[in-house]
Amino acid sequence: MDLKGYLSDKRALIEDFLKGYFEPPIRPQVLNGAMVYSLLAGGKRIRPILCLASYEACGGDAKDIVAYASALEFIHTYSLIHDDLPAMDNDDLRRGKPTNHKVFGEGMAILAGDGLLTEAFHILSRMDHPTNNGFRPSAASLLRVIQDVARSAGLYGMVAGQAQDLLSEDSEPDEETLTFIHTHKTAALITASVRMGAILANAPEELLLTLTCYGTHIGLAFQVVDDILDITQETETLGKPKGSDERKKKSTYPKFFGLDGSRQRAQTLATKAIECLQPFGDKAEALREIARYLVIRIQ
Amino acid sequence: MDLKGYLSDKRALIEDFLKGYFEPPIRPQVLNGAMVYSLLAGGKRIRPILCLASYEACGGDAKDIVAYASALEFIHTYSLIHDDLPAMDNDDLRRGKPTNHKVFGEGMAILAGDGLLTEAFHILSRMDHPTNNGFRPSAASLLRVIQDVARSAGLYGMVAGQAQDLLSEDSEPDEETLTFIHTHKTAALITASVRMGAILANAPEELLLTLTCYGTHIGLAFQVVDDILDITQETETLGKPKGSDERKKKSTYPKFFGLDGSRQRAQTLATKAIECLQPFGDKAEALREIARYLVIRIQ
Repeated sequence: MDLKGYLSDKRALIEDFLKGYFEPPIRPQVLNGAMVYSLLAGGKRIRPILCLASYEACGGDAKDIVAYASALEFIHTYSLIHDDLPAMDNDDLRRGKPTNHKVFGEGMAILAGDGLLTEAFHILSRMDHPTNNGFRPSAASLLRVIQDVARSAGLYGMVAGQAQDLLSEDSEPDEETLTFIHTHKTAALITASVRMGAILANAPEELLLTLTCYGTHIGLAFQVVDDILDITQETETLGKPKGSDERKKKSTYPKFFGLDGSRQRAQTLATKAIECLQPFGDKAEALREIARYLVIRIQ
Repeated sequence: MDLKGYLSDKRALIEDFLKGYFEPPIRPQVLNGAMVYSLLAGGKRIRPILCLASYEACGGDAKDIVAYASALEFIHTYSLIHDDLPAMDNDDLRRGKPTNHKVFGEGMAILAGDGLLTEAFHILSRMDHPTNNGFRPSAASLLRVIQDVARSAGLYGMVAGQAQDLLSEDSEPDEETLTFIHTHKTAALITASVRMGAILANAPEELLLTLTCYGTHIGLAFQVVDDILDITQETETLGKPKGSDERKKKSTYPKFFGLDGSRQRAQTLATKAIECLQPFGDKAEALREIARYLVIRIQ
């Protein structure tokens, strides 16, 4: 299969939704501008794409659920804006552009993040998006999606992981703490993204578990790969200063397992993710290719 | 009716829920501590109480919906933590205690706010709270509640109002901007609180509109009263420095309409709120008393 074409087609669906979302803009315009600045700053859109691919693996048409999948990008973007703040990671550059607070000020950046997070739940709570391709999910499945997303973005996921990350700076974490940070900070929301596709497709419970297995492994693999690329890629490709994890004394996989050990871990996780998909046969080829592509980047 | 007893009974229901919520605590413990610090710092719990009173007016038993009503306090608390940050209102004192970031640092305060906001949607997405008194709301009504709350807490409410407030500091806003700030920053979530009770009670659409009318007026009245008390009450009663709105050049009602003009506005709003409740007869006595009590505080 042509993964590159697949990713670019799906990415275009998400970009179109995101570009149209704040037309007409909300008031005040500075807040609107701050949200749009980060939401449309590029990015691989991997969370929504995983959601669409999972929905397709369960027999759905990706166009049905672009709005819901895009809500994941609202949440991811909010987390980047808040993470970049001086009180958190204190980053000046993100995707090659000045970070949100550098352009709009800290107060507006905090509010832009708060707004994007809250709006994600607004998007997920609506049955009647005009972009839904005629599809109308059940209230029960949307409620389940919201529960999943709230858990994985909040206290049982991303926020808890970020808090532990903040607390672990300048210290030498043990393996258990490192795993806690990465499963919570990154893998939880990625797992929820994959699960969302299955839930919206009303997939049987055993396929949902299968995709949860895939999501957990691919989610952790993503973080390991991210940690590796922070060391091996150049600043220009990264869109942020190379080696910033190390300078900030972040808890990373390479710090704990070395570069080769981390590569091996990423490979093992990707292989396991692919194994989880066995019950799907041909239908999950896109999800498999994404897992394979991930580890090619770190060779 | 004994309003004082009513408020204290309802407040006890909410306090019990909030106190039990983080037992066992979530990890990391510092994040748990930061959330609990602000969530249990006192406060009138007026949003959840309005929700319970509205549910009762529609024939329900308040004990059914304590979890959902308490979610409003998670959102209110998050908004206070973020508003107090140095990049926003830069307050050191809240309810007579050091503000969240003064105790836990800015990064953890931002995360505590993010966590409380996200957890509110987790609470609202669950049908099966053990505290539900046997009550099980429909998925459709919970979804509607989530939509209402997300709109009023986010880009069509609180976040937009706070952003406009931030932008209007140090300037002389016109009446239209002042009204935008207060209807969005305060009245929107209060309206959603009142509406939540009616939606969870499956009240007919005309009663929901009636309560929306009440909520809009009482919500704005709350902000006017708050602005007045910031000038007339002493620091000890306020729990924060007296006159801080003026020092921060905040857009307030007294600044625009004077103290007496603002008192008159609060009175008119409370009277209109009470008029909205006419279709309820005796059943809405608590909601009426709350409106009356509000304006007694500023005499």
